[in-house]
Amino acid sequence: MPMRLSSLFLRTLREDPSDADVAGHRLLLRAGYIRRAGSGLYTWLPLGLAVKAKIEQVIREEMAAAGAQEVFFPALLPREPFEVTGRWSEYGDNLFRLQDRKKADYLLAPTHEEMFTLLVKDLYSSYKDLPLCIYQIQNKYRDEARPRAGLLRGREFVMKDAYSFDISDEGLKDAYQAQRDAYERIFTRLGVDYVIVKADAGAMGGSASEEFLSPSPIGEDTFVRSPGGYAANVEAVTTVAPPKISISSQPAAEVVTTPECSNIKRIVAWSNENRKRTDDNQWSAEHTLKNNVMALISPEGKRELVVIGLPGDRDVDLKRAEAAFSPNEIEQANEEDFAKHPELIKGYIGPVKGSQALLGLKGSSKIRYLLDPRVVEGSAWVTGANEKEKHVFDLVAGRDFSADGVIDVAEVRAGDQAPDGSGALELARGIEIGHVFQLGRKYAEALGLQVLDENGKLITVTMGSYGIGVTRLVAVLAEANHDANGLIWPAAVSPADVYIVAAGKDDEIYQAAEKLALEIEAKGKTVILDDRPKVSPGVKFGDAELIGVPSIVIVGKGLENGQVDLWNRRSGERVPVALESAVAEIIKAKN
Amino acid sequence: MPMRLSSLFLRTLREDPSDADVAGHRLLLRAGYIRRAGSGLYTWLPLGLAVKAKIEQVIREEMAAAGAQEVFFPALLPREPFEVTGRWSEYGDNLFRLQDRKKADYLLAPTHEEMFTLLVKDLYSSYKDLPLCIYQIQNKYRDEARPRAGLLRGREFVMKDAYSFDISDEGLKDAYQAQRDAYERIFTRLGVDYVIVKADAGAMGGSASEEFLSPSPIGEDTFVRSPGGYAANVEAVTTVAPPKISISSQPAAEVVTTPECSNIKRIVAWSNENRKRTDDNQWSAEHTLKNNVMALISPEGKRELVVIGLPGDRDVDLKRAEAAFSPNEIEQANEEDFAKHPELIKGYIGPVKGSQALLGLKGSSKIRYLLDPRVVEGSAWVTGANEKEKHVFDLVAGRDFSADGVIDVAEVRAGDQAPDGSGALELARGIEIGHVFQLGRKYAEALGLQVLDENGKLITVTMGSYGIGVTRLVAVLAEANHDANGLIWPAAVSPADVYIVAAGKDDEIYQAAEKLALEIEAKGKTVILDDRPKVSPGVKFGDAELIGVPSIVIVGKGLENGQVDLWNRRSGERVPVALESAVAEIIKAKN
Repeated sequence: MPMRLSSLFLRTLREDPSDADVAGHRLLLRAGYIRRAGSGLYTWLPLGLAVKAKIEQVIREEMAAAGAQEVFFPALLPREPFEVTGRWSEYGDNLFRLQDRKKADYLLAPTHEEMFTLLVKDLYSSYKDLPLCIYQIQNKYRDEARPRAGLLRGREFVMKDAYSFDISDEGLKDAYQAQRDAYERIFTRLGVDYVIVKADAGAMGGSASEEFLSPSPIGEDTFVRSPGGYAANVEAVTTVAPPKISISSQPAAEVVTTPECSNIKRIVAWSNENRKRTDDNQWSAEHTLKNNVMALISPEGKRELVVIGLPGDRDVDLKRAEAAFSPNEIEQANEEDFAKHPELIKGYIGPVKGSQALLGLKGSSKIRYLLDPRVVEGSAWVTGANEKEKHVFDLVAGRDFSADGVIDVAEVRAGDQAPDGSGALELARGIEIGHVFQLGRKYAEALGLQVLDENGKLITVTMGSYGIGVTRLVAVLAEANHDANGLIWPAAVSPADVYIVAAGKDDEIYQAAEKLALEIEAKGKTVILDDRPKVSPGVKFGDAELIGVPSIVIVGKGLENGQVDLWNRRSGERVPVALESAVAEIIKAKN
Repeated sequence: MPMRLSSLFLRTLREDPSDADVAGHRLLLRAGYIRRAGSGLYTWLPLGLAVKAKIEQVIREEMAAAGAQEVFFPALLPREPFEVTGRWSEYGDNLFRLQDRKKADYLLAPTHEEMFTLLVKDLYSSYKDLPLCIYQIQNKYRDEARPRAGLLRGREFVMKDAYSFDISDEGLKDAYQAQRDAYERIFTRLGVDYVIVKADAGAMGGSASEEFLSPSPIGEDTFVRSPGGYAANVEAVTTVAPPKISISSQPAAEVVTTPECSNIKRIVAWSNENRKRTDDNQWSAEHTLKNNVMALISPEGKRELVVIGLPGDRDVDLKRAEAAFSPNEIEQANEEDFAKHPELIKGYIGPVKGSQALLGLKGSSKIRYLLDPRVVEGSAWVTGANEKEKHVFDLVAGRDFSADGVIDVAEVRAGDQAPDGSGALELARGIEIGHVFQLGRKYAEALGLQVLDENGKLITVTMGSYGIGVTRLVAVLAEANHDANGLIWPAAVSPADVYIVAAGKDDEIYQAAEKLALEIEAKGKTVILDDRPKVSPGVKFGDAELIGVPSIVIVGKGLENGQVDLWNRRSGERVPVALESAVAEIIKAKN
């Protein structure tokens, strides 16, 4: 049965809604696909539900083709399993927590690793039962600090989350590859542009991890790619350390009075004026060692200072730092932190004071000190001498100072070299639409998921997790497929296959449009029919463009000559065809 | 693609799970349809998901046929709209409440009246936009005090909730009838036995209200029916008051000393011994007026005593009382209540003390006094005289005492007369599977849903609400369709159309079974294939019975003679048929 605009629960809006920050979201609201129900909460109207259902159907088909079986978990879950894995606290403020009438703790699940693990533990016990891949398409909850761009970052959203279970690492690799392949098929079928990037395994534990990003200027994720095919999100980029330098060739360190040089820019300028380099180069920020004092906050709320030393021409990238220090949160040290550590002289912080280590767990400050990979053994630096208006020159790593470890959290810049030698990186923005991830044995170990192997010995199962943001895909598709007049859906996700406009006042027009709609539906295609009797053709065309079904048929004035117009929403092309061949032409057309 | 038991995520259980209290629930667990995830929380395994999907599909088809359009709301909702209608507090402990990171109040929606009302207000503004009927199939949440019988009373469950919007009462009646008709079609198609009973409009406000109950001994709802076709749930049964009696014919009231007669049984026995009736009848409990002291607790927690006077042969039915006093809760008065009212002498409570009213807002106690409809004007009663060991005889309603109102909350008994004169009532138990309800203008008024009428005047919209318990239907169907060996699904909801058992060791058997499965699927039917190579035929037959697909095919020994067995799960009949005609026979068979 065609969706008839005369009765469809829909009101298109002429004006841009005030609260919509990106174009795709504005159009989803204006064209009547969704409505806002609260901060980060959206109601699906019939057209939106149709698009969402199409995406889910493609995912279901490809999951089945990959051998994954569908299950469905509650969204409301008891605290205990999440306590065992530590995620109850690690999730911090992002987790919606609540209590039932008996004051027992519950949560609204952000993902279901624990529950899937426990379910398999509950039902399976032998290596013969594996491999297994199960998934669900389900509402998830995250109490985002900043819900954004409508469906792009909501607080209640739909995800497909799949989990694989294997006894061997090879099995996991195969399962991972099968899901990765399925994702490629899914995004291709849906008409979504995507890049697969290396991801940081970070908080989730485990090893191999890749994200599917859809390149978009409104994306929240920055990723890099090289001409040679390297691609990674910024959190996962590793820095190629330069070669070590011979310590014996370096001059001795020297403390110098540097008046009013409390930042990198000033010490560089002062050095170029007062202390020329031995080579003919100018001093620049990259010759300085900047020591960033930061604070880590553990999930339990414990605060610990850490100093990150990196070349002065780079800043710490907070997203990279968050990933590296997860599940701790990280922020710049505040006045209170400094007040507790009077040995840290702002603008003049360095690893050593006199001949004694200051930074580092073995230094007098007892503050953990971590170095950027570029600070290699033998490299010489200009850095603070831990006294007001004093810097030290030629402070050599491995000779004059050392650290508690290496940390790779400096900002990544266009032109940096790809770690695999495939050339200079360029930066782009993308939206995460999928994530495949070799979890390994972390969850199985925490929750005791073991099976008997061929020799009757208990072995721990290895797992993978594989997510797709279903409702986010609606936003991504809307963002990537629109023009100034409205949406332009890829055929695979359009709320209907064909959109028929009855444009005019004569009954014959409405009868012909109705007949055409039924004939097209008889061919197995779905139709939206604009049969509103008292709406002008101009308004109807505007709504047709706004709603964005790619294949439009206009039944109007041409009918007198036995013709209708086929209107390709994407190209804008309108072609008259004879009414009697219209159905065949429409079925044939690919938009 | 057939579901193959060799890889299907399924483990049938030989033993009854300890925590399952009813047969259908035990079998859903044992046959691997669902698993418990927490109190009142269930995980759906592939077979269960298949049954649930079939039910949802039937509902969607019949909703579309009734002109209802599908939408989808968040389950997580802000407090404000529920505050406006009062339901934030009225729902009491049944509502899951939580706060987000900004300490704003949210809830997990038990139903969505407010949100549907606001959505229509948001999009529609004219009488021309109506009538409208919209619905969703969605997860609901209720923090049940006693989750029970698995899917029958869970805390997260799926409902179809539809809402109609009309400008006139006639429109609402039509919408109500359309949904009611759709419900009859849905339950008939699903093979669910049902009775439509009058329901109490109670807490929800509004007028006409009917429930669809599936008769079942494990049902929580008691309903009545008469030979003449009257049916109602106990909350909705109205009592036919007997005719008034002439006061002038009644003797004067007399206070009598009644030693050790602090309950109905004793005062009846004492009276028969010491104070014969003027007619030849014996005294019995129905001649006494029992005065029940109860406490109402308002949603805000305010406690108010109320006394309910009713014939001594009946008790107050707490469910009827809850419905009548909703949104207040009601319970028996406790010791503390009595301590505050020393004028209430337990066992001897009555409406008057001496010649003064005691009970009633105008009585000296100031406690609200309500009477059963059977206590008609002119009726004479034996009741307490408000002194230890004293009763009053021939206390006449309307002459000697009066009350603040009538309340119809006495227990309903088999043999009571139907209010419409259609005969004596019988009592039965049922499970509520659907509810249709003329809400009227309550929500529209509270939330300001108005549209312009033909004259440009704002009028308030009238609404109906229509619910079906989707996951509960799975439980109802399992409960109504099983035997000692397992489930027996109606064909419309079976997880597959045909279940093929490959029974034996020979490769030929497995090849023939596989070929048969594919041939049946090519005809558009779905198949479960038990292709487990190392499982005995006995175990396979047991699982086939447990899982309960109504149409089973055994590919086994008969294959040597070119035969397979068709096994009707419901009748138990097994019929050999030639392999080559098997597909046609299976397609033909109706189980």
